[in-house]
Amino acid sequence: MTEPAERRGLHVLGIAGSLRRASYNRALLRAAVELAPPGMEIEIFDQVGALPLFNQDLEAGGDAAPVAALKAAVQRADALLVATPEYNYGLTAPLKNAVDWASRPPGKSALRGKPAAIMGASMGPGGTIRAQLALRQAFLYTEVYALLKPEVLVGSAHEKFDDQGNLTDARTRQSVAALLGALAEWVGRLRA
Amino acid sequence: MTEPAERRGLHVLGIAGSLRRASYNRALLRAAVELAPPGMEIEIFDQVGALPLFNQDLEAGGDAAPVAALKAAVQRADALLVATPEYNYGLTAPLKNAVDWASRPPGKSALRGKPAAIMGASMGPGGTIRAQLALRQAFLYTEVYALLKPEVLVGSAHEKFDDQGNLTDARTRQSVAALLGALAEWVGRLRA
Amino acid sequence: MTEPAERRGLHVLGIAGSLRRASYNRALLRAAVELAPPGMEIEIFDQVGALPLFNQDLEAGGDAAPVAALKAAVQRADALLVATPEYNYGLTAPLKNAVDWASRPPGKSALRGKPAAIMGASMGPGGTIRAQLALRQAFLYTEVYALLKPEVLVGSAHEKFDDQGNLTDARTRQSVAALLGALAEWVGRLRA
Amino acid sequence: MTEPAERRGLHVLGIAGSLRRASYNRALLRAAVELAPPGMEIEIFDQVGALPLFNQDLEAGGDAAPVAALKAAVQRADALLVATPEYNYGLTAPLKNAVDWASRPPGKSALRGKPAAIMGASMGPGGTIRAQLALRQAFLYTEVYALLKPEVLVGSAHEKFDDQGNLTDARTRQSVAALLGALAEWVGRLRA
Repeated sequence: MTEPAERRGLHVLGIAGSLRRASYNRALLRAAVELAPPGMEIEIFDQVGALPLFNQDLEAGGDAAPVAALKAAVQRADALLVATPEYNYGLTAPLKNAVDWASRPPGKSALRGKPAAIMGASMGPGGTIRAQLALRQAFLYTEVYALLKPEVLVGSAHEKFDDQGNLTDARTRQSVAALLGALAEWVGRLRA
Repeated sequence: MTEPAERRGLHVLGIAGSLRRASYNRALLRAAVELAPPGMEIEIFDQVGALPLFNQDLEAGGDAAPVAALKAAVQRADALLVATPEYNYGLTAPLKNAVDWASRPPGKSALRGKPAAIMGASMGPGGTIRAQLALRQAFLYTEVYALLKPEVLVGSAHEKFDDQGNLTDARTRQSVAALLGALAEWVGRLRA
Repeated sequence: MTEPAERRGLHVLGIAGSLRRASYNRALLRAAVELAPPGMEIEIFDQVGALPLFNQDLEAGGDAAPVAALKAAVQRADALLVATPEYNYGLTAPLKNAVDWASRPPGKSALRGKPAAIMGASMGPGGTIRAQLALRQAFLYTEVYALLKPEVLVGSAHEKFDDQGNLTDARTRQSVAALLGALAEWVGRLRA
Repeated sequence: MTEPAERRGLHVLGIAGSLRRASYNRALLRAAVELAPPGMEIEIFDQVGALPLFNQDLEAGGDAAPVAALKAAVQRADALLVATPEYNYGLTAPLKNAVDWASRPPGKSALRGKPAAIMGASMGPGGTIRAQLALRQAFLYTEVYALLKPEVLVGSAHEKFDDQGNLTDARTRQSVAALLGALAEWVGRLRA
């Protein structure tokens, strides 16, 4: 007997766009795991750095293990949660690479139709504004339904996390919690 | 005795954003090599696919050979010529990765102040419009002086190259030649 | 006795971003009126050109008649349909002006939560790619739920309309019809 | 006898994108007038709000007085200085309108080849990041040579101006002065 959808809870796949161990965006994603509302479970995809640079010739030889793992993880997720840094006013290569692999091949994209929420942290004041817009643009093409609000733009990140990478800023914690709540509602709305 | 600048000629570094052997953008770059005006020599950087995904922790251990090669190649170039595909309405990961490595570390970016020209080819009608805008955005932060005009947006690429990847479309050949001519002038203007 | 929502049909507000009488985008909107699926009625807002340039000092004096008309029309619409030209790689001033007036004041924006579909026509090959992205960005802030697909990017517009401004290109007609069908479904989905 | 260019000084045309009398961006432009380096004179174009909404049919009847004034002012300027607000994540209609009028007709654009500097002020933390990117995109098409650095993104504007609209924040004053210095150098470089 299958459990009804509303009982099953939400399975969210978290992806961080930085490979640096002490990354604020990885820390932001860990904070989200803690702050997830009842019924939502966030799994962090930890092989972003193991994906080869996308190359269609390579793809022709079949999916490498981390690529297959990514596609399967996206497939089984009810929604995505992306924590994006901003490098040189755009997306990081590791994150764009993950998005590009997950979107392949065109007719069978694991991304297509998936709901998503976006957040990001930066040292500067913008809080990854430009990278988030670039990600939304990728999500337009790949038909990922990115939540519009709230936008979680964490500027001055060094003042909001402690030395162990714990998100200590109360207002940011509330923003992340609000984002997750809105994501749960968004998934429900799109399911209808 | 040093040769005067105008005699020395222009050394341009070409970078293609696709790793696929039969890529239209790699073919576009090869066409540019042929179409270079007298006095301009275009070297193609062929290790884009060998660069590791950018990771600040990795960077801390010193530059891997392809990273060092990229930085040196950018450093000694008078200008850059980028052929960018568009993946999912944005830059490819290999290209963004190359830009991000070349821009590091912040105070010593090999990119800073470098003149550049941008072109791109796609199967669809847009000719990589969105990717070129994203690249210009990265070049704003990294202070690369990208030429404004002409923009070389090669749509319907499959109709413009032959099976061996030779650029056969006369109008596109003229556009590429015009871009290179404008780049030479741009470099001269910025040098003043 | 109130008629149930599904019987009432969909009332869509159409807005074109050009003031030129013979504008392809106004023609595209007229084509949409014809191509609307059963149960969808599209009203064209024809006072875009009568709106004053947005000015907060002016706003403080109360809404001018065309501003009030715009807000009321947005308010009573189930969804928006925007036909956007592209001027200088961005939105037209008349369209941005309409969006900005409709979004005011912040707490009472008529736009907030409204579903929308976007299309656009240009003489060049891009079909208003950049303007549509700019509009999606405005719709992010104003929380307008813009449909992701299909994207209707009508390039080479002069080949797709006849001299009387009738949309004659069969494929474009199908695209517009598909957009309207998808919009109806999108409204239903978001209502849930 | 003609005075040599370096003696003549630089004539800069300042344009603010807000019509509100107490606008931070108009105040920022006034601050620039004060902070202009020796040899630079900044004239503020004060008819942005008098320009009709761009309409090609209207244009066919000849330039209205404020349109003619704008074109003449751009024509005689050595460079432009734009202070842009951000409305709904994009340019304001009055500013885009001014850019669009100034760019007309295509073959005789007063903007083409003009050097420019961009700045902007907002209440939020971003300091008009998105609007400035949109303006750079318009300047790509219109071939306005926008200075890359420094970027003047004045966030939390209410903390940086006094009640009379005087720019009191020392760091912002330095940024504006640095922008103007860089603009003077940029004009010289492009003239070569």
